[in-house]
Amino acid sequence: MSKKIDNKGITVEKDEFTEWFTQIMLKADLADYTEVSGCIVFKPTAYEMWENIRDIVDEGYGQLGIRNAYFPLFIPEKFLNKEKEHVKGFSPEVAWVTQAGNTKLNERLAVRPTSETIMYPSISKWIRSYRDLPLKLNQWNNVVRWEFKNPVPFLRTREFLWSEGHTAFATQKEAEAEGKDIIELYDGVCREIMALPSLIGRKTEKEKFAGAEYTISMEFYMPNGKAIQGPDFHHDGQKFAKAYGVQFVDKNEKKQYVYQNTFAITTRMLGVMFAVHSDDKGLIMPPMVAPNTVAIIPIFDDKSKKQVLKEAEKIADALEDFGVIYDDREYYRPGFKFNEYEMKGIPLRIEIGKRDLETNSAVVVRRDNGKKESVKIGKLKKYVEETLENIQDNLLKKAEKLLKGAVVSISSFKELESAIKNKKISLTNLCSSVKCEEDLKHKTEGAKVLNIDEKKKVSGKCIICSKKAEYVARVAKSY
Amino acid sequence: MSKKIDNKGITVEKDEFTEWFTQIMLKADLADYTEVSGCIVFKPTAYEMWENIRDIVDEGYGQLGIRNAYFPLFIPEKFLNKEKEHVKGFSPEVAWVTQAGNTKLNERLAVRPTSETIMYPSISKWIRSYRDLPLKLNQWNNVVRWEFKNPVPFLRTREFLWSEGHTAFATQKEAEAEGKDIIELYDGVCREIMALPSLIGRKTEKEKFAGAEYTISMEFYMPNGKAIQGPDFHHDGQKFAKAYGVQFVDKNEKKQYVYQNTFAITTRMLGVMFAVHSDDKGLIMPPMVAPNTVAIIPIFDDKSKKQVLKEAEKIADALEDFGVIYDDREYYRPGFKFNEYEMKGIPLRIEIGKRDLETNSAVVVRRDNGKKESVKIGKLKKYVEETLENIQDNLLKKAEKLLKGAVVSISSFKELESAIKNKKISLTNLCSSVKCEEDLKHKTEGAKVLNIDEKKKVSGKCIICSKKAEYVARVAKSY
Repeated sequence: MSKKIDNKGITVEKDEFTEWFTQIMLKADLADYTEVSGCIVFKPTAYEMWENIRDIVDEGYGQLGIRNAYFPLFIPEKFLNKEKEHVKGFSPEVAWVTQAGNTKLNERLAVRPTSETIMYPSISKWIRSYRDLPLKLNQWNNVVRWEFKNPVPFLRTREFLWSEGHTAFATQKEAEAEGKDIIELYDGVCREIMALPSLIGRKTEKEKFAGAEYTISMEFYMPNGKAIQGPDFHHDGQKFAKAYGVQFVDKNEKKQYVYQNTFAITTRMLGVMFAVHSDDKGLIMPPMVAPNTVAIIPIFDDKSKKQVLKEAEKIADALEDFGVIYDDREYYRPGFKFNEYEMKGIPLRIEIGKRDLETNSAVVVRRDNGKKESVKIGKLKKYVEETLENIQDNLLKKAEKLLKGAVVSISSFKELESAIKNKKISLTNLCSSVKCEEDLKHKTEGAKVLNIDEKKKVSGKCIICSKKAEYVARVAKSY
Repeated sequence: MSKKIDNKGITVEKDEFTEWFTQIMLKADLADYTEVSGCIVFKPTAYEMWENIRDIVDEGYGQLGIRNAYFPLFIPEKFLNKEKEHVKGFSPEVAWVTQAGNTKLNERLAVRPTSETIMYPSISKWIRSYRDLPLKLNQWNNVVRWEFKNPVPFLRTREFLWSEGHTAFATQKEAEAEGKDIIELYDGVCREIMALPSLIGRKTEKEKFAGAEYTISMEFYMPNGKAIQGPDFHHDGQKFAKAYGVQFVDKNEKKQYVYQNTFAITTRMLGVMFAVHSDDKGLIMPPMVAPNTVAIIPIFDDKSKKQVLKEAEKIADALEDFGVIYDDREYYRPGFKFNEYEMKGIPLRIEIGKRDLETNSAVVVRRDNGKKESVKIGKLKKYVEETLENIQDNLLKKAEKLLKGAVVSISSFKELESAIKNKKISLTNLCSSVKCEEDLKHKTEGAKVLNIDEKKKVSGKCIICSKKAEYVARVAKSY
């Protein structure tokens, strides 16, 4: 699994996506392969971005009254088996603990692929009356899904990190209303922080979460022309409540089952973010998520050293709040450092040498578009602040353009085939039969329904069976 | 495993420690048992305290240049086996994944009991030259040690949460110097935030971490008279470096092995904190770690409702920064709420009723000593701030008194036996032989050396073999 890293830049263009993405990951120091197939190391820069995302999502959860908790990693097999659609969906991918020390366990333990089946037996004990509702919990943890498809760092790893929210309500109405808040929160974090727009909609029956009544998903578009699913929200109705006996006594002293939701955002989003924004020079980080947004590189010779370092340090102090890397290492030449911070996607680079000091200026270089500008030192702080905002906007706009350009309307199967060949997301009339969806996948050699564009009014026929279409589905090849 | 919770207060006194501790955990809503033997649910209040501790430790790590990363949960068996003392120490407690879906794995995977053996093969690839050093990493994660001893919630659980720091240096001197910083950080967090003093010292050869050159531990004293180990720091020398080939090219272009440290703080500390501070009325939380420090309870009848709620809400707004619980639920009586917040350990309770408003006052009740005071509303904020500081100090002082009173000097084996019977920590002359330590444990029916009091000069004879004593050991029954 080990890959050799050379010290050159990215040696392939973004078109050769898989190799390009691997090089970004390794050369920008984001992650590394390990000897555990399908599991990666999240190196500090990538992990710190995840922490930034976590903190922002967490604040949003707090405002919605969702509190963090921690449930066991292990799920007894009998618990996993209680909700039959759920177990069918997950059991092929479960990693099983069968032994502890030298002792064979009496009952196998699943390493959680998701935590419904370990949480709900507890919740069923805690909820007694309507006064205990709503109960809103979240956990930030690691889950394992031993997929046998080809793993891809960040995008499909056998272990990944996520937030999993689990809420229980007295009424269906309250439960469903939460969907809007959660998707709004996730969409805000994706757009405003990660600069990633998405296509939001309901999943089809075939593609919904195993055990849910319905799923709302956010679908993203990757620069290799594939779609990829991001955060999602599942309304579970009373399915799990009935399987796990999660009941409460209502105001009329009647026993009722709760209505439940689950929702999640995962480290996959880091991969989507790296893929969408970066270029042939390496990583591009949106400033809002970057652990460091400015790299300051003093340029000096023996004669100018003292004066340049003095000024450069002052600038570093003044810009401290932006997360500054101050690089005065003498065993690397400035050109080496320029390449390094380009590769690592630091949003702004500030070069300061003797000649700049003569005009009381510094040179600021943007990572996103390469533009250079000489800026008076007195105006630097304001310039940096505004330029970082501008970079953030710019990345979102570019990503929006990419996404918008990918979505096409099609009106025949032939047009669908051609759109798929051209790596587009097709707005496609479909009926709701699982059979048609399976046929579509088969006939297109693997394209699938991402989700339903619920804002589009449907008229006309299902593109597969020619019966009345029931919705406009977004169809594409997808991770 | 499931325990029935009644709605009464704590029904046993702190003397009956095990039952008392269990009731605190369940009735103060800190944790719950699960069907996975030895694993608990960390409920929101306990988990949020852990998050508070995490954030403070994390800030300290940042100041020491330690960055967070995330390595896989699973460790291939061949990796675990490379450092022979380490594997001997951990393999009896390893949970093994042997199967994924329906497929038997070619090689068993250990669920990490600690991450040296998965991290160091990666680190050995990343470190090339002295310029890559020091490398300082930490991860916040879950680990599993399938102990067959009786599990105790928080104090000994098969899965627990922790921070594990792993650092590599070019020289032994630098590596060892880090020990002081790390212990200072942990000691600061334990004392200033958790109000928990400890006995700090080096572990004996017998008790040191499996694979370390030496271990510095922090030992705490529990109200049931048992000692318990808290955070620790291990200097690993070059042991792991040699087992995992972690080498660098030094300034003279010679290949050298790095010097490594590992250190950790775990969720066990929550249990120590709950046990040391709490009383027969329930939990007592130090204000510095409490997610909420003030509970405001308006007291009203139909006639006074409007006026009282208006004033109480104003107070709640003014005290917002302290993490206020504002409880205007009408289906519970004030007395019920008083008991609830006493049980849950909220440091301050503020009662506000019509009669208080007449004198423009509110009643403030301290959880730690039950003292009540009527305070003018205009002075409330300052009073709350000062009182919380005073509670924090008071808890530390009480804990210091408890610990100080537990430590005794002994000069004969008979005195040692009597001290152990009286649940003391004995300062005991010992030679450094493992045999004597084993004899001591056997003869005392289970007391052990916690660590060495390095500030005490030793003179005289080993209490076991009567040869020359080499150090003053702290001896007690321990978790």
